[in-house]
Amino acid sequence: MSGAQGSRGTTAPGALMAAEVASQPEVLERVLREAPAAVQAVAAQVRRFAPRFVLLAARGTSDHAALYAKYLIETTLGLPAGLVSTSTYTTYGAEPDLSGVLWVAVSQSGGSPDLVESTSRARAGGALTLAVTNAAGSPLAEAAQLNLDVLAGPEHSVAATKTYTASLLTLLLLVEAWRDADTLDLQGLPSLAHAALDLPQVAAVAARYRFVDKLVTTSRGYAYPTAREAALKLMETCYLSAHAFSGADLLHGPLALIDADRPVVAIVPEGAGGRALAPVLERLVERGADLCVVAPPGVGAEPTVPLPAGMVERVAPIVQVIPLQQLARELAVSRAQDPDVPRGLSKVTRTL
Amino acid sequence: MSGAQGSRGTTAPGALMAAEVASQPEVLERVLREAPAAVQAVAAQVRRFAPRFVLLAARGTSDHAALYAKYLIETTLGLPAGLVSTSTYTTYGAEPDLSGVLWVAVSQSGGSPDLVESTSRARAGGALTLAVTNAAGSPLAEAAQLNLDVLAGPEHSVAATKTYTASLLTLLLLVEAWRDADTLDLQGLPSLAHAALDLPQVAAVAARYRFVDKLVTTSRGYAYPTAREAALKLMETCYLSAHAFSGADLLHGPLALIDADRPVVAIVPEGAGGRALAPVLERLVERGADLCVVAPPGVGAEPTVPLPAGMVERVAPIVQVIPLQQLARELAVSRAQDPDVPRGLSKVTRTL
Repeated sequence: MSGAQGSRGTTAPGALMAAEVASQPEVLERVLREAPAAVQAVAAQVRRFAPRFVLLAARGTSDHAALYAKYLIETTLGLPAGLVSTSTYTTYGAEPDLSGVLWVAVSQSGGSPDLVESTSRARAGGALTLAVTNAAGSPLAEAAQLNLDVLAGPEHSVAATKTYTASLLTLLLLVEAWRDADTLDLQGLPSLAHAALDLPQVAAVAARYRFVDKLVTTSRGYAYPTAREAALKLMETCYLSAHAFSGADLLHGPLALIDADRPVVAIVPEGAGGRALAPVLERLVERGADLCVVAPPGVGAEPTVPLPAGMVERVAPIVQVIPLQQLARELAVSRAQDPDVPRGLSKVTRTL
Repeated sequence: MSGAQGSRGTTAPGALMAAEVASQPEVLERVLREAPAAVQAVAAQVRRFAPRFVLLAARGTSDHAALYAKYLIETTLGLPAGLVSTSTYTTYGAEPDLSGVLWVAVSQSGGSPDLVESTSRARAGGALTLAVTNAAGSPLAEAAQLNLDVLAGPEHSVAATKTYTASLLTLLLLVEAWRDADTLDLQGLPSLAHAALDLPQVAAVAARYRFVDKLVTTSRGYAYPTAREAALKLMETCYLSAHAFSGADLLHGPLALIDADRPVVAIVPEGAGGRALAPVLERLVERGADLCVVAPPGVGAEPTVPLPAGMVERVAPIVQVIPLQQLARELAVSRAQDPDVPRGLSKVTRTL
C-alpha cells in the first residue's frame, strides 16, 4: 500500500482505490480496537445533554453515512432525526432555535466550508455539536464541541471508500454506546468484510456491464444508504448515470424508467428491509429489468453477488458496500478510466 | 378540458397533462380565494401547539413539495425540520417520542398505505398530525388530526402537475399564516403562472433535446425542489435518466459525470439561492456542459427559458416548475410517448 501511495502516476489506474478498499478489514479492526474509549466519552456527554432531536449535516459519501445514522437513531433510539440542508444556514442565514438538538456533522476531510459554517451556527443556536471526521485537527473538528475520529488513516483516492465504512462503524458504535446497549457482537466484522472482498462474481458483473451507461440501484431501510453510495461511486469513477432510489420511491414514478436496457442493482439485506423490498423486486421482474441482486443467500432472491450470511441488518451496510466499491473500480478500469483521479473532482470540496 | 378527461384513449397523447398544466393559473387563483379560512384555522391550532420541530412525510412529487416546506419552515420560522423515511415507522416499527412534533404528510391521493400508517403512528407517538392532500375524504386525511385540501380538482394525468403547484402554494400560505406574517402579496401569482405557460423557448429546448437520454438538473435552496420535480417529470414521462443535484452536492462527486454530451438544466432564481449557484454554473461551463438556464432576466446567466422577473425567491418555485412540466410533456410527445399514461405507473402507489 505504501508503494501505491508513494508512486502515484507510475502505478496502475485505480491502484490507490484498490489498496484502500482492500484495507477496510484492517481499518474496521482498528476502529473496534481504538475507538471505544472516545466513543464512550462522547456518548456520555450526549446522554447528559439528552437531545430531543438529532440533525445530521454532510455531503456526498458522508451524507450516506449520515443517512445510515438517521435510520439507527430513529429506529434504535426512538428519537426523531433529520438531514440538514446546509444552504438553509449558509445561503439564507437561518438561525433556528436548536436548543436541545444534537447536531452531527460528518465529513471525511473536515474541510468543507459550508459544514464548518453551519456547524458554528448550530452551536451558536444552542445545539450540542459533534464532528465525525477522518481529520482530527480539521476546521470542522475545531468548530464542534465534540469530536470523533473515524481512524481510517490518510485516504488518497478521490473516491472515498475506507472513510465511508469507518464512518458507518463509528456512528454505529456511538449509537450503541448512547443507548447503553451491549448486545451487538462486532468482533467478527473485520473477517466478514474480508469475506466480501474480491468476489469473482463482481468481476463477472463488471464484464457484463462494460457497455452500460445508465443504471439504477435500489434498496430499503438500512441498506438504502448502500444503494446511494454505490450509485455515487459509479457516477464519480465510471461517469455512469447511476440513479439510486429507495424501493418505495421507485414505485412512485421512476419505475417507468426501467426496461431491459437499464440494469438494476438491488441490495437485499436479511431482515425487515429485505422483506419490504420483495414486492419491489417482483415489479422489477415484471417490467423485464435486468437484475443484479447483492444479497446473502436465503433472502428469497437468488444472489448475483453473494454477501456473507447471518449479519444483523443494521450492521450489514458496513460490509455490503465493499463489493459495490470494487464493482465501481473494476468497471472504471475496464473503461480505461482512472478511478483514483476522476475528472473534474478534488478531494476537498469547497462550497459555501 | 372536460373533453380531454371524458374521452381518454381517443384524445391526443399528453392531452390530459397539457390541460392540467394549463389550468394552474386558475387553480392557484382558487387556492388564493378559497384556502385562507382553512389555512388560518390550521395555523391557529399549530401555533397553539407550538411545535419544537417539524417532520414532513411524502413520496414522489409530494416529497418535493415537502422539501420546499422544509426550506420555508427552517428559514422563515427558524424551526428545525426533517424529511421522514417512512420505512423507519412501517418497516422497522420505530416508535419515536414525537411529543411536541408537528407531522405534516403531503400526498396528492391521500391513499399511500405507508403514509397512512406512519401518520397514525406519529399521532400515537404524540405528534400533532396534518394531512395536506388533494382528496379531503382520503384515508390519510382521516388518519390526521388536521387537514388541508389543496383544491386542485381531480387530477387525471398520472404525472402530477397542478397538485404540485397547489401543494406548494397551500404550504406557503400555511407557513405565512403560522408565523403571522402579512407581508407577501400573492395576488399577482396566477398571472405570473400564466406568463410562464407556453413559452416558445420550451419548444425549442424540447426539439434540441429530442435525442438526449441522460440529463442533469440543478439548483440551490428554495429552487432545488424545482430541479428535483423537473427530473422526476422527465423520468416518468420521457424515461430519461434525469438526475437532480443541489449545486453543492454536484461538486461532491457527480460533477465528474458532466461532459458536453449530458445537458444540464439549471434553475437560477433571483436572490440568495441564485447567487449561491453562480460558482457551480462557472464550474459547469469550465467542464464544457451544455447548459439550459431557466431563470428570470438579470440573474447573471443569460436565460435559455425566461421566467417572469421580480418574484420573491420563496414564491418563485410555484411558477418556475411550469415550463419544466411543459418541457417534459413536449419531449415525451415528440418521442411518441403518452405522458398521461407512463408505462408501469398508476396514480396511487401502494407501498408499505
